[in-house]
Amino acid sequence: MTIGIVGAGQLGRMMALAGYPLGLDFLFLDKDAGTCAAQLSPQLTGAFEDPKLLDQLAKRCEVVTIDWENVPVASMERIARTTPVAPPLAALAAAQDRLSEKSLFHSLGIPTNDHQAVDSREDLLRAVQAIGLPGVLKTRRMGYDGKGQAVLRKASDVESAWASLGSQPLIYEAFVPFDYEVSIIGVRSTRGEIALYPLNRNLHRDGILRLTRAPWHAPVVEAAARRYMRKLLAHFSYVGVLTVEFFVRRGKLVANEMAPRVHNSGHWTIEGAVTSQFENHVRAVLGLPLGDTSVTGHSAMLNLIGEMPTREGLLSDGRLHLHDYGKSPRPGRKLGHVTLLETTARRRDQRAATLLRKIDARKL
Amino acid sequence: MTIGIVGAGQLGRMMALAGYPLGLDFLFLDKDAGTCAAQLSPQLTGAFEDPKLLDQLAKRCEVVTIDWENVPVASMERIARTTPVAPPLAALAAAQDRLSEKSLFHSLGIPTNDHQAVDSREDLLRAVQAIGLPGVLKTRRMGYDGKGQAVLRKASDVESAWASLGSQPLIYEAFVPFDYEVSIIGVRSTRGEIALYPLNRNLHRDGILRLTRAPWHAPVVEAAARRYMRKLLAHFSYVGVLTVEFFVRRGKLVANEMAPRVHNSGHWTIEGAVTSQFENHVRAVLGLPLGDTSVTGHSAMLNLIGEMPTREGLLSDGRLHLHDYGKSPRPGRKLGHVTLLETTARRRDQRAATLLRKIDARKL
Repeated sequence: MTIGIVGAGQLGRMMALAGYPLGLDFLFLDKDAGTCAAQLSPQLTGAFEDPKLLDQLAKRCEVVTIDWENVPVASMERIARTTPVAPPLAALAAAQDRLSEKSLFHSLGIPTNDHQAVDSREDLLRAVQAIGLPGVLKTRRMGYDGKGQAVLRKASDVESAWASLGSQPLIYEAFVPFDYEVSIIGVRSTRGEIALYPLNRNLHRDGILRLTRAPWHAPVVEAAARRYMRKLLAHFSYVGVLTVEFFVRRGKLVANEMAPRVHNSGHWTIEGAVTSQFENHVRAVLGLPLGDTSVTGHSAMLNLIGEMPTREGLLSDGRLHLHDYGKSPRPGRKLGHVTLLETTARRRDQRAATLLRKIDARKL
Repeated sequence: MTIGIVGAGQLGRMMALAGYPLGLDFLFLDKDAGTCAAQLSPQLTGAFEDPKLLDQLAKRCEVVTIDWENVPVASMERIARTTPVAPPLAALAAAQDRLSEKSLFHSLGIPTNDHQAVDSREDLLRAVQAIGLPGVLKTRRMGYDGKGQAVLRKASDVESAWASLGSQPLIYEAFVPFDYEVSIIGVRSTRGEIALYPLNRNLHRDGILRLTRAPWHAPVVEAAARRYMRKLLAHFSYVGVLTVEFFVRRGKLVANEMAPRVHNSGHWTIEGAVTSQFENHVRAVLGLPLGDTSVTGHSAMLNLIGEMPTREGLLSDGRLHLHDYGKSPRPGRKLGHVTLLETTARRRDQRAATLLRKIDARKL
């Protein structure tokens, strides 16, 4: 049984690593040849829009899913003519446009920050007037890891922000002062079975996830996050793993964005949960029973960004779990992650803080 | 960094699955094309004795190891001219001949059963007279999973045993009445770092491992097993994972055989230990720091032999870990295994017994 995956980055690679033990095969489609998933799976190489490759993928796979949320919806539509796809196209489309995403959240009663569509300089001026400063101007499409964003703090920032981003559909959002960030990861199978992972607390730096700790003990916040997740899963009759990121301000949630896929903030589940997000995504899209999402301890996941510490340095802590994606180093690029597991949240937090300092100081 | 593996069965496959997250690459050599490791790694296909392929493997890899202990020693010798190999050739040679193996155990003070070399019908008669009945006549080479063995219970069994096995070097061994079977798995790195996993209790059926439970609480037995393991690791200046199987009789150990490789009785370490035997083998042969061998709970590993239960049936227990090797079914063939983890040994034993009954009754 073969699962097709459009996009062959580290997420696809980790799906394959989780799916092989279930006796499954994988086939990737990516525009680059030297992807990190191609190191361990066959791959079709060419444009995401290439009808021949899409048809080949559809023909050779039982189901096709994604490792990147910006895969063209039209490509997935073409595949869906003959082969089941996951996530649902409507979820993919909503997640690709920040405006649709916010409208969706709003319609489902999921709190978001104030926002307005910006398609002209006049729109931007109107939005800033209505919503106020500070605010963030973002591209509606193709933004990730803090890319395609400009923070506006004072009136004069309008012109520079417009100059840098103004050639594409935009959204202006109120700047949300927040106490901390969390995410929740849920999964729904083709049979309608649902499972949720516990709450993740996330720390971003320069727009890139740096540290996730889970489970994060915040019962009221978690209950709200679970409620919103269930609404989204039900709305789309969703299939696969879905992630929603929230800001937390005085115990209240503000939805930031959703990712219709496995998520960086869920990498700790490989060792820290009975069944990883990757295995559960694979199970979900095939209609297999979902695996237990209970935790096996208190996990912290740290991203390795830009350059890799030495393998020896990282592994000299015999309890650390290394995930090296096999990518070449580049500033700001996610090259791997490490996960540590502890018996208490307190120990985890201490160990994570020490490790983060060491990595930052390049002492590993 | 690429690790070469001679033999591309499930053990090699699980080594690759453990090594990919460390950012390593793999290259296999096997005589068959459709191996279960080739599903996820590149492979050179041809005879284990093919000098061209051996040279290619040596050239393309930083280190070469094995997934099968009957790889010709001469092949590994050829590779070793240019490229480090693990395990050491002396350990491989000893493990390939039951007589050398027993002599080695004897010389290191590791108890074995009585045995004599048998190269003729007369040798066999003499051995039976000296050692007595019942006894087991075994081929000295290429025996595994109970193959190449004949049990002699009465004098008249001598002729039929000789008729079925007599064309090759043999060994006659006293039949060891035993209370139960255990194995111990150790690992030593190129740096001389050593780590041992806790004791495994093993249940065989028709000569094939059926069930392993670990950790098995038997402190005196475990202390002896650890002592013997350390002697063997030191004797060979061993590199990689080494396994020794023992019979236990009234609290005393009798060494049965050793395997100079990762072992079926250590498959539970994938989920049941902080670092699996597969990852530690990979770390050891590369001289990386070894990972923690502590357990994460009480594990039971059940082999799936001859035919696979349905994936749905197995996964309907959301806490069961399935490992399907992607092989085609055949009577007596190891097709996969499942691992379950519990918080107490008692719960594990109960759950394992129930699961074993279900699998035997084909109710999954």
